[in-house]
Amino acid sequence: MLTKFQPNQTYSLTALNGRRSNGRATESDIQDLISQGAASIAEKDADIKAFTAQIPLADVGRMSDQPLLGLPVGVKDIIDTSELPTQNGSVIYEGHQPRSDAAIVRLVKRAGGQVTHKTVTTEFAFLQPNKTRNPQNLNHTPGGSSSGSAAAVASGMLPFAIGTQTGGSIIRPAAYCGTFGFKPSFDALPTVGTKTFSWSLDTLGLYAPSVPDMHLFWSALMHSKAPLRTPYKPLTLGILQPNVWDEASADAQEAIAKATEVWVSKGFNAANVAWTDLYSQAFDAHKTIHDYEGYRALAWEMDVHPDKLSPVLMECLEEGSTVTRTAYLEAQQIAARARRSLASTQNTVDIIITPSAPDVAPETLNSTGTSIFNRFLTLMGLPCIHLPAYQTESALPIGFQLVGKSHQDDTLLSVANDLWEAL
Amino acid sequence: MLTKFQPNQTYSLTALNGRRSNGRATESDIQDLISQGAASIAEKDADIKAFTAQIPLADVGRMSDQPLLGLPVGVKDIIDTSELPTQNGSVIYEGHQPRSDAAIVRLVKRAGGQVTHKTVTTEFAFLQPNKTRNPQNLNHTPGGSSSGSAAAVASGMLPFAIGTQTGGSIIRPAAYCGTFGFKPSFDALPTVGTKTFSWSLDTLGLYAPSVPDMHLFWSALMHSKAPLRTPYKPLTLGILQPNVWDEASADAQEAIAKATEVWVSKGFNAANVAWTDLYSQAFDAHKTIHDYEGYRALAWEMDVHPDKLSPVLMECLEEGSTVTRTAYLEAQQIAARARRSLASTQNTVDIIITPSAPDVAPETLNSTGTSIFNRFLTLMGLPCIHLPAYQTESALPIGFQLVGKSHQDDTLLSVANDLWEAL
Repeated sequence: MLTKFQPNQTYSLTALNGRRSNGRATESDIQDLISQGAASIAEKDADIKAFTAQIPLADVGRMSDQPLLGLPVGVKDIIDTSELPTQNGSVIYEGHQPRSDAAIVRLVKRAGGQVTHKTVTTEFAFLQPNKTRNPQNLNHTPGGSSSGSAAAVASGMLPFAIGTQTGGSIIRPAAYCGTFGFKPSFDALPTVGTKTFSWSLDTLGLYAPSVPDMHLFWSALMHSKAPLRTPYKPLTLGILQPNVWDEASADAQEAIAKATEVWVSKGFNAANVAWTDLYSQAFDAHKTIHDYEGYRALAWEMDVHPDKLSPVLMECLEEGSTVTRTAYLEAQQIAARARRSLASTQNTVDIIITPSAPDVAPETLNSTGTSIFNRFLTLMGLPCIHLPAYQTESALPIGFQLVGKSHQDDTLLSVANDLWEAL
Repeated sequence: MLTKFQPNQTYSLTALNGRRSNGRATESDIQDLISQGAASIAEKDADIKAFTAQIPLADVGRMSDQPLLGLPVGVKDIIDTSELPTQNGSVIYEGHQPRSDAAIVRLVKRAGGQVTHKTVTTEFAFLQPNKTRNPQNLNHTPGGSSSGSAAAVASGMLPFAIGTQTGGSIIRPAAYCGTFGFKPSFDALPTVGTKTFSWSLDTLGLYAPSVPDMHLFWSALMHSKAPLRTPYKPLTLGILQPNVWDEASADAQEAIAKATEVWVSKGFNAANVAWTDLYSQAFDAHKTIHDYEGYRALAWEMDVHPDKLSPVLMECLEEGSTVTRTAYLEAQQIAARARRSLASTQNTVDIIITPSAPDVAPETLNSTGTSIFNRFLTLMGLPCIHLPAYQTESALPIGFQLVGKSHQDDTLLSVANDLWEAL
């Protein structure tokens, strides 16, 4: 039996703006918000362990006149920062200080944000867990690989954070930690200066404490002026039950059913999206592409520091060494065909709904869970947002993801906002 | 009146292998070849200035049992090397020592090559010339941006070198310097650890002193066992006269005509490939995509070190700042449509022939020439090889490029070899 989950929304810029008559927070508002965030960090981070490095918030500059208004932003520790070490979650890069900022760091600064925190990542954004714990229950995994970014926003320690998804590393931590995670369309946010695992899959994504905050963050980075819009006609929700649907717990399936009920109660339509054999092939193609590219992208680490890689990563890279060029190109072709097929299906559904993860965060710190509900969508390159809608009887958050059309990220955010408000 | 050009082929591994009865050079052969290359460097590089850093060849290890047999390889100075500085052709990165090797550096090492030389690049692989001179005539530009890589192989100083092409930076320097340049299909060689200008365009490419050497180099990097094959049936050559055809000199047009004549004399077919309006739109889309992505990829350099960028680069980045997301996505859609259209045309032609550059290398050191004959093909992501077939009355090399089908790089190399032998 699921009940409504209340995500931590104390660090919300849009809520703050909304309390001001001109819709714009004052400098003293912003300072108060930053102080409150600093207090959250002081109170919680000894347990949660979301950060690898930080610039003291006392040193954060004055309010910017750009949209992010000088607020702090956390970036995953596989993203190069010229003023903070970047250690990729690996002892190989202990104390490593990049010369320059990754592109996304500069986009944050151009948008008026301050990159103050490096957030914990699993080793090279793969599976080996790192030190972060789930803010909802410290004995449960926060998910990976963007563990620190998700946990920091879910716990109100930061208003915005950036992560990456190659399998399920934006959506899964959002689901496990109970916050909003948004994986935009592939290549919408530039990965230049971000440690590569798979150049066909790696996608930067965002965390924020609400859909309006997500929209504000996204719009600031994209220089977009498109507002959140209420749908002016009934939309069709496509329910996607993928090959791994049976792996979804009763709670995960109930979350989809409840959200669909709310959707339909608005007078909107819902229909099933057929899962085809081609999609199952694409699901498998993800691993072929992932491993082939990883074996090349992490070649220096594998060849020069094999003793410093975790067994789970080394196994993946060794599997990558056995993938032939022919198999890789075939996997890419399957992916391209599946993208075309799904795009054609999306002509008749406005938004897709599907589980974000098999269940709530597992009670373990030795695994970050599984990306089986995310891999296919990452390979498809479609925008996905996790909504932390419900909680289970054990008070752990569970939700679902909404999936938009390629490069129609703004529409996805608008529909997500509309549904969230109705829940 | 063009005559046959004799490219410098003294540093040819396949020629050396061919002189041995088992088809395999001995260790002492390899040492002799390396010594001879070192002598070329000592004799010529004070004039040509192809290198930014090098490991003394005396320190090069023993013969490898992998295909590249321990020979030295030069890599463009926008490619990260853990044992040599990487300065991106910019004072901003003076003395910069990367922590790790780029993926392509490890692929060279895995294939048994030694990365001994960093080769001169223009500033961030854009237009601002650097110090390298054309080995055929020191008063002429070597082309850009892979100036040092092309000049080093063209002059017999290195047997193999690696460059990149975003506009025309593999093919043009090969044409101007008189050597073989190969831009493989987009993303065939991993750009991880290579300084990004445009993630949709940047393509790693190769230089070698002959088509068989190019094939050996390519096969070694790709773990491919496909041999060079003689066509077993008549092929069709597609002659592509792009929108900028009138910019091709009489010599450049004659090179195409002569090669086509040789092709037809083999009993093969030739036909014109229609240049369509969509291709002209794609030609323009190249700039939209290039500038939009450059403004983001080089954000740190632009924002933090604007005073250290050349005016020509700063102008490009500023233009990039004005490109809207809508214009960018539209340009990407035009590119996708043009790729599909050209692929459909390639169903009826086996190989395309088109100029590599408007003319021979211009007599200037203040410009690296123009990429007008390359941009469109870079955006199409198709494999291209330059063949240095002819020379003008002023003894400067001029040739043409052959263009293959997407990810049929081996076929392109086979056809190029067959044509080269017939010339």
